[in-house]
Amino acid sequence: MPLKKVVIIGGGFGGLTAAKELKNANLDITLIDKTNHHLFQPLLYQVATAALSPADVAAPIRAILNKQKNIRVIMGEVNRIDTSSKKVFLNGDAFDYDYLITAVGSRHSYFGNDKWEKFAPGLKTINDALKLREKILLSFEKAERLNDEKEIKKQMTFVIVGGGPTGVELAGAIAEIARVTMLKDFRKINPAKTKIILVEALDRLLTAFDRQLSAKANESLEELGVTVLLNRRVVDINERGVQFENEMIETPNVIWAAGNTIPSIVSSLNSETDRAGRAIVENDCSLKNHPEIFVIGDAALFIENGKPLPGIAPAAIQQGRYVAKIIANGIPKEGRKPFKYFDKGILATIGKAKAVMQIGGVKASGWFAWIAWVFVHILYLIGFRNRYKVLAEWIWLYVTNRHGIRLITQKTEM
Amino acid sequence: MPLKKVVIIGGGFGGLTAAKELKNANLDITLIDKTNHHLFQPLLYQVATAALSPADVAAPIRAILNKQKNIRVIMGEVNRIDTSSKKVFLNGDAFDYDYLITAVGSRHSYFGNDKWEKFAPGLKTINDALKLREKILLSFEKAERLNDEKEIKKQMTFVIVGGGPTGVELAGAIAEIARVTMLKDFRKINPAKTKIILVEALDRLLTAFDRQLSAKANESLEELGVTVLLNRRVVDINERGVQFENEMIETPNVIWAAGNTIPSIVSSLNSETDRAGRAIVENDCSLKNHPEIFVIGDAALFIENGKPLPGIAPAAIQQGRYVAKIIANGIPKEGRKPFKYFDKGILATIGKAKAVMQIGGVKASGWFAWIAWVFVHILYLIGFRNRYKVLAEWIWLYVTNRHGIRLITQKTEM
Repeated sequence: MPLKKVVIIGGGFGGLTAAKELKNANLDITLIDKTNHHLFQPLLYQVATAALSPADVAAPIRAILNKQKNIRVIMGEVNRIDTSSKKVFLNGDAFDYDYLITAVGSRHSYFGNDKWEKFAPGLKTINDALKLREKILLSFEKAERLNDEKEIKKQMTFVIVGGGPTGVELAGAIAEIARVTMLKDFRKINPAKTKIILVEALDRLLTAFDRQLSAKANESLEELGVTVLLNRRVVDINERGVQFENEMIETPNVIWAAGNTIPSIVSSLNSETDRAGRAIVENDCSLKNHPEIFVIGDAALFIENGKPLPGIAPAAIQQGRYVAKIIANGIPKEGRKPFKYFDKGILATIGKAKAVMQIGGVKASGWFAWIAWVFVHILYLIGFRNRYKVLAEWIWLYVTNRHGIRLITQKTEM
Repeated sequence: MPLKKVVIIGGGFGGLTAAKELKNANLDITLIDKTNHHLFQPLLYQVATAALSPADVAAPIRAILNKQKNIRVIMGEVNRIDTSSKKVFLNGDAFDYDYLITAVGSRHSYFGNDKWEKFAPGLKTINDALKLREKILLSFEKAERLNDEKEIKKQMTFVIVGGGPTGVELAGAIAEIARVTMLKDFRKINPAKTKIILVEALDRLLTAFDRQLSAKANESLEELGVTVLLNRRVVDINERGVQFENEMIETPNVIWAAGNTIPSIVSSLNSETDRAGRAIVENDCSLKNHPEIFVIGDAALFIENGKPLPGIAPAAIQQGRYVAKIIANGIPKEGRKPFKYFDKGILATIGKAKAVMQIGGVKASGWFAWIAWVFVHILYLIGFRNRYKVLAEWIWLYVTNRHGIRLITQKTEM
């Protein structure tokens, strides 16, 4: 009898965990990813802010799985999924499946204003991070060459839209690189005068956390010199800057850290979706009427106790492990116990030595939370090598305050 | 009296050394570079072959010079030099100089066949290295997806044109990444079958070395599985591959490591040049009739004992130091002692643990030469941080054979 075929789309936290969990299964597995690497997305903002190199937060998927003989890794973008003939199409190639795991993650959403993207790039891939890093560094280079005070001020203004963990972490890190690391690097401009503005549409930062921790984060950011604007709705983003209802901030440096949408490939599953495009899954992470198709991680809407699971790595990892067990054991729909999310807590860091954390009812902030953040992130990093390198980089950064990765490598017009 | 103005064009080995040497001089110095970083070019091939990250071989020029208050660093490309009004033009800006140090390095030369560049990229900048790395890695990814044996063979063939140090080092490193590091990463293709062909127009590799060492290098490369083709002249390079006089090698993977030319900005100095475009300098590194203009490093043709100085880092560094002393002390033309090159020897590495070295009449090869190579390169690396990181990376690589930086980060069509 030929082996059952499993196709996994996406080598992020969910897809990669499922693949590893299936290591002893007697199956024919194909993992397809658009890139050749697994990305540790929670640390991507550190690549954008010149603290880490791309290779510190990413590892080749092939290398991670190279001992697992039952799996084949393919780099490419899936064009279409045909759920009736059970095929996944990739340019000219078709891959049959008996089980399909869709773990494609999410992308930025500009809430229908796609033309904003050009002026306010987001942060999802390594390429995004490198572009953002160059944009930030080039602004200071341009400012140093300019003579007009107003133009210099514009170049040295940064607006980050979105007060979730990515926005908060970026704002803190940009404040540090400008006001500490680069303080003595320029002769004409004073990097300490950099304006960093974090904008949130709701009435507080980090809405997934308790109000008290939101307030703490706000306070810590202000201490770092970040201006936090709450209840502020973006009306337009264009070549001049960010337009709010009653105000305009002029700057070429706008960073988008708000809103997620799901890659369009999910729509070819023809399942029910929510407004953001997430596939609505049953309590076994499979699609209604398709017990052989699972959607996990950010691309799925999983409702537990009336609330959707958060789009964070632990949820994707746990779902990946759960669906791998079902597939390895060939458990039919009716025999599957519902997926249960185990809340390991949430963490966000603010600048060099502060963070907020919340585990169930337990809350913490400041230095202790930051140490917890460091250890959790090191622990979850893929591969011994990256762990040891990232820890070394952080110790270096902690001691010297020198962001070493300040390279502008693309050919850029100035 | 206003301070004398010094403009240094280029933050490579020559320009940066001159800048550092002038640290206590009472001068108004401007260093202009196209990029924001100093690049340790001798290790660039290791970025291209996924052994090192860009930040391991490059450091921001501002950060290197940030304690030196008499210098201003400008990122930008010089458009024109006016030697009569003593001005350097950079887009809208003009910089006056009393002394000018031109240290702009060299670029690839395709000997008049500029259309080859598209099919056979070279290796001079970090961006070149990243593109080359992606090209190499993508070839294997494509091969793994292909079904046609002939097409697979083409993707797994690499031709390196030019048997100088860069060509030799690249060939050795590609052989290792293919045949050792990635050996177990693929299911369909066998990376051990990768063909690496090093092509040289003359009758031996590494012509700057003694014949005996050329033979050693040849032998070591063949042991690594590289095919060395000598006396082979390239007639054409196009989308099909490389055309020789009587033969064609079909491959999309051609790498150019032959020939240098000088950035065109040197021509606006209106000095005498050689065929490659190098400015012919006097024995004090200045231009004839322009004792205030120095050209150093690869961009200069300096004749000593009837022979031109080699275009290598030690020559540029020594010249940078020499001209800085002249400028710091305001020595007039007639008071300058001629520049004397101190030959510290030459080194080239072949794969993981072999190298050839030659210091004056002393020759060595094999493991001992390789250890010397490691120490010389670590010693000359800019900045404590990079040294310690690169050494850590090399130890890791030596022990595990895992090239960790195997990332394809650009959006690439497949």
